[in-house]
Amino acid sequence: MPSKIIGKNAVINAAESKRKFFEVFVSYQNLNSCESVLKYAESNNVKIHILRRNEMDVKFPKEKHQGIVAYVEEYKYANIEEILEGNENPFIIILDGLEDPQNLGAILRTADATNVDCVIIPKNRSVALNSTVAKVSTGAIEYVPVAQVTNLTQTIRRIKELGVWVVGTDSDAEMDYTEIDGNMRIAIVVGSEGKGISRLVKEQCDYLVKIPMNGKVNSLNASVSAALMMYEVYKGRH
Amino acid sequence: MPSKIIGKNAVINAAESKRKFFEVFVSYQNLNSCESVLKYAESNNVKIHILRRNEMDVKFPKEKHQGIVAYVEEYKYANIEEILEGNENPFIIILDGLEDPQNLGAILRTADATNVDCVIIPKNRSVALNSTVAKVSTGAIEYVPVAQVTNLTQTIRRIKELGVWVVGTDSDAEMDYTEIDGNMRIAIVVGSEGKGISRLVKEQCDYLVKIPMNGKVNSLNASVSAALMMYEVYKGRH
Repeated sequence: MPSKIIGKNAVINAAESKRKFFEVFVSYQNLNSCESVLKYAESNNVKIHILRRNEMDVKFPKEKHQGIVAYVEEYKYANIEEILEGNENPFIIILDGLEDPQNLGAILRTADATNVDCVIIPKNRSVALNSTVAKVSTGAIEYVPVAQVTNLTQTIRRIKELGVWVVGTDSDAEMDYTEIDGNMRIAIVVGSEGKGISRLVKEQCDYLVKIPMNGKVNSLNASVSAALMMYEVYKGRH
Repeated sequence: MPSKIIGKNAVINAAESKRKFFEVFVSYQNLNSCESVLKYAESNNVKIHILRRNEMDVKFPKEKHQGIVAYVEEYKYANIEEILEGNENPFIIILDGLEDPQNLGAILRTADATNVDCVIIPKNRSVALNSTVAKVSTGAIEYVPVAQVTNLTQTIRRIKELGVWVVGTDSDAEMDYTEIDGNMRIAIVVGSEGKGISRLVKEQCDYLVKIPMNGKVNSLNASVSAALMMYEVYKGRH
């Protein structure tokens, strides 16, 4: 099954990262701004359809297509072992039941910016890689390896055996998130939008830290708290 | 025109902040968890409709209603002068053409957590307060004053006359965002999703700072970069 990717940034990045293309639909207005995509498609004998903007709207009525849509090889998941092999100082993000593709897309963007080695998601009750994630990630989906695992707590146990410290957030924690030592082998756990980190996963955490909140609302958006944590680790490494 | 608010957190927060209610629709399953809302509605003679879950689905087919929807007084915008009067050390967020209600909702959540005094948005070409923003903000919309202005650059000039320093982000800036002195009177400018900060607004900034990005993608999600900036200011103040 090919995946559909929508919007300029996402399609351009897919071409740049040499993802296999099957078909491209592009509006006349975008011929210039998407030149790199068309060149890539041409040199790989990919069928290119050039449409008027309103024809694009008819063909892709539900998407904010921004004048370009491509059908590409579906997103592949990474293998954790392969990625971590030989990595002396891994930086991992574990998403414990994230549901919103907007959040996953935004997290992949920040993960790309902060040199995260791998994002781990569970197979069940979790958002997966799809075209919304690809679009929101503005291409980061092409660069950040995402691994899908059947049993998250088991995976965390395995990661810990590699000497990785697992850090979760908890509003009752005593340690502030700015106290994280980013320079250690580290995995940051991000909880789901509604329920936060599940009990079983929390029990696996070596540290729990809190992000201070001084208002009336009791939690931050998942991609926001993930970003605050990722940049703390990033700072410790640069 | 009443505004519709959707979802447990948003409705509970609207009731807590004593927003005027016109009507509430709640599912049987939520009678317990939304007790505070029903008490508030009852004591204000607001009509309460108790429905089965599937009746809720029929009535609100497009929304993820989570079993509760309320019609309330529409969102009012704040007056900047009133908010800043007597405030010795204001902390302001200026959104220069933000378009995505998800981002505005997430920004209001972080703004609540970091004690932002006021969020300023332009009247044109910008997202406005609506039910999606309310839902995503999980109630922060009730606590963070949002002002809508006709001319953003003019407003910025007026703010600067009050001794507020205006800080924008720019990937070419030399100063790192962690060097912001959060303890001064400060306004953080957040650019739009597609285009960043407009030229006219950028020219008004006293400082430009960059958020380091070490990957292949060239920008962060708007609510993420806003959050990183807000927490830097927050740290300087606590």
